[in-house]
Amino acid sequence: MQVLNYENLNEKEKFEALKRPVMSVKEELGGVVKGIIDDVKKRGDEALYEQALKFDKAEISSIQISQKELDEACERVDENLKKAIQKAYENISKFHQAQLKEVLRVETSKGVCCELLTRPIEKVGLYIPAGSAPLFSTALMLAIPAKIAKCEKIVLASPAKINDVVLFCAKLCKVDEIYQMGGAGAIAALAYGTKSVVKVDKIFGPGNAFVTEAKRQVSSDIMGASIDMQAGPSEVLVIADEDARADFVASDLLSQAEHGADSQVILVCLSEDFAKKVQKELEIQLKSLPRKEIASKSLSNSKIFIAKDLNEALEISNAYAPEHLIIQTQNPRELLSGIKHAGSVFLGAYSPESMGDYASGTNHVLPTYGLTKTHSSLSLMDFMKTMSVQELSVDGFKNLAKSVELMAEAECLMAHKNAVSLRLRTLENE
Amino acid sequence: MQVLNYENLNEKEKFEALKRPVMSVKEELGGVVKGIIDDVKKRGDEALYEQALKFDKAEISSIQISQKELDEACERVDENLKKAIQKAYENISKFHQAQLKEVLRVETSKGVCCELLTRPIEKVGLYIPAGSAPLFSTALMLAIPAKIAKCEKIVLASPAKINDVVLFCAKLCKVDEIYQMGGAGAIAALAYGTKSVVKVDKIFGPGNAFVTEAKRQVSSDIMGASIDMQAGPSEVLVIADEDARADFVASDLLSQAEHGADSQVILVCLSEDFAKKVQKELEIQLKSLPRKEIASKSLSNSKIFIAKDLNEALEISNAYAPEHLIIQTQNPRELLSGIKHAGSVFLGAYSPESMGDYASGTNHVLPTYGLTKTHSSLSLMDFMKTMSVQELSVDGFKNLAKSVELMAEAECLMAHKNAVSLRLRTLENE
Repeated sequence: MQVLNYENLNEKEKFEALKRPVMSVKEELGGVVKGIIDDVKKRGDEALYEQALKFDKAEISSIQISQKELDEACERVDENLKKAIQKAYENISKFHQAQLKEVLRVETSKGVCCELLTRPIEKVGLYIPAGSAPLFSTALMLAIPAKIAKCEKIVLASPAKINDVVLFCAKLCKVDEIYQMGGAGAIAALAYGTKSVVKVDKIFGPGNAFVTEAKRQVSSDIMGASIDMQAGPSEVLVIADEDARADFVASDLLSQAEHGADSQVILVCLSEDFAKKVQKELEIQLKSLPRKEIASKSLSNSKIFIAKDLNEALEISNAYAPEHLIIQTQNPRELLSGIKHAGSVFLGAYSPESMGDYASGTNHVLPTYGLTKTHSSLSLMDFMKTMSVQELSVDGFKNLAKSVELMAEAECLMAHKNAVSLRLRTLENE
Repeated sequence: MQVLNYENLNEKEKFEALKRPVMSVKEELGGVVKGIIDDVKKRGDEALYEQALKFDKAEISSIQISQKELDEACERVDENLKKAIQKAYENISKFHQAQLKEVLRVETSKGVCCELLTRPIEKVGLYIPAGSAPLFSTALMLAIPAKIAKCEKIVLASPAKINDVVLFCAKLCKVDEIYQMGGAGAIAALAYGTKSVVKVDKIFGPGNAFVTEAKRQVSSDIMGASIDMQAGPSEVLVIADEDARADFVASDLLSQAEHGADSQVILVCLSEDFAKKVQKELEIQLKSLPRKEIASKSLSNSKIFIAKDLNEALEISNAYAPEHLIIQTQNPRELLSGIKHAGSVFLGAYSPESMGDYASGTNHVLPTYGLTKTHSSLSLMDFMKTMSVQELSVDGFKNLAKSVELMAEAECLMAHKNAVSLRLRTLENE
């Protein structure tokens, strides 16, 4: 890891040092993905069967998983793992249940009642990639809030053959339908529907470059579907003071680095001495990791910043706006009010990222690539939307009528004015 | 207006009848807009000066409005209009202030504390189009929540020469900087910054096809800026029963129809007789409107549905998912729980859309084109984002550690497991 003394950098160097690498999207990807989407739109299920064979090497007899297949898969899951998942399920449920909102009701002027209500999104599609590891935890993170939001139809898609634990989580969360389909074709099927696949309103979940591009394409088509968020490589920034344990810090950096060679890992500490300790620990711990090659590659692109104090550490973190922010200092909570941008914050030595990734209760779907500056971490509200309501009594109406007439006239919208004047005249004549 | 008896339509006919017209985006628009954006990125202020001359026929000496210009403009605004705006300002402030959220704090398991916090978006840019009418009310709808959210930098852009009332609203809302610039160039300047213009994180506000396309382009560039929402033509759906006044209903339909020839206007009522009454009223009221040509065009594409009862009326409304939904029935509030999708709902005879457009307190920036199925009406939260926080005590950590180890292992993420195991070992050795 490159070590940089932040104070010594000029503005341009600071900007460059904190810049994320350019995401290389291959020119031809867009066209390939469009081809796959068009094929699903045109040939529906038939295209999905072919794609399962071609991309997932799976000969399937039906897109939808039957109750029998589901039950059998759940039988095969280890009992201890089931209990662990149950614990995570309860914490995630508790945190997302608490996010349900009461109706907001305000009398803005006498007789003018304004409200903000929430409504569930009707049909949602959850995509769980297969790839190098079966991410069943993501199934929990998506299906639990969807259920709490009371989405009417919750469907889940994952490439054939779907991992047993993913199926167990889907059953636990009472997902309505499960489809064995993957990649851009699965996103297309969710966005447009096929004979076997329900068309959904919004698609959630991570995926490879094909899935990401497919989500981009269907979300820019008004006849397609909305999506949760743009996804970039996963990232962590750790702020550590002299009080922190170098081995803990190293283990947290590595648990980010193992995600992929493009993962972003940043340490902000207060001395070169501490930086050295962490680097030594990284070397030791790296040796015993099965994914050490991936982690090494990721670390080789990563940086350690030496900050002169915790204020500068916060400045660095806010400029980077990390997805995950781990704070291992003597009084981690003291820094919280200074954090402007982060997806999820982990306070203290015993709050490693792994806890939030699986079981603390927070959602692990978070904005990346600096998007925490403008976007929220995934929450119950992503499965709902708000609508406003107003109800004016006759007095409330009278109270505002003249103001609205004047404003409408000043905007040259005379029909807007007329809708008010007509009612005023009617009231006067009564 | 075309009259359709909903009950008599088959599924395909229902779908077709409620479908919005295809938005015709001219092929060449994308390229033209890209050219304008690139020019602003390359030449900055110089490009903006040229564009003001070319597109807005305005020779300006500075992009930013000076305090003197601002004060002078405000002097020129009519005192009665100022008072009307002040009233609207107070209601909008009250409703959006009430949307501020407390920190959500939940102990999901013993010793595991999870929180959801909000943070303002740092820099926001508000775009106010000039066009046929100066939409100063939109300046209120955007600047008031931005200020309540405590965005650090709030800037407003509008084509030269900016309307006095827009400037008055900007001053009233304590906007930090005001730029006289318009169209795609203004969006580019906000997204990338120039010598005179602050680069913002998120851009809000309506505009013509060039502005909409520019917002689309800068929001799909990760180095650009986020945007509020995709914008389509404005629309209203009115549900009226036999109890409703045909003249009131007609005036509400017209106040939507005058927005533009592409505005969508739909009436759902319970009898052909009532439909006829409304059509007669439309003819009468239309005559006295200055924008009658626009309104007539819009009405000629619009529809009246006859529903067999209020349940079917709700079914029609939910299938259409309107931006504005006006309910003029004997007991309008009874229908509220059945409304699944709408941007803003207007309950009762004395809650015309004009009230929400200007002064009731709700926000008039709403999703269009059926996007109310997945998107929220603009609210305070669009100027903020949430981040989650977790803090585990040693006991809280121990309580979850084994579960997280098992789950990480099952996902083949051994560094995630190691971050937990290492801490467990440390605790055991203490």
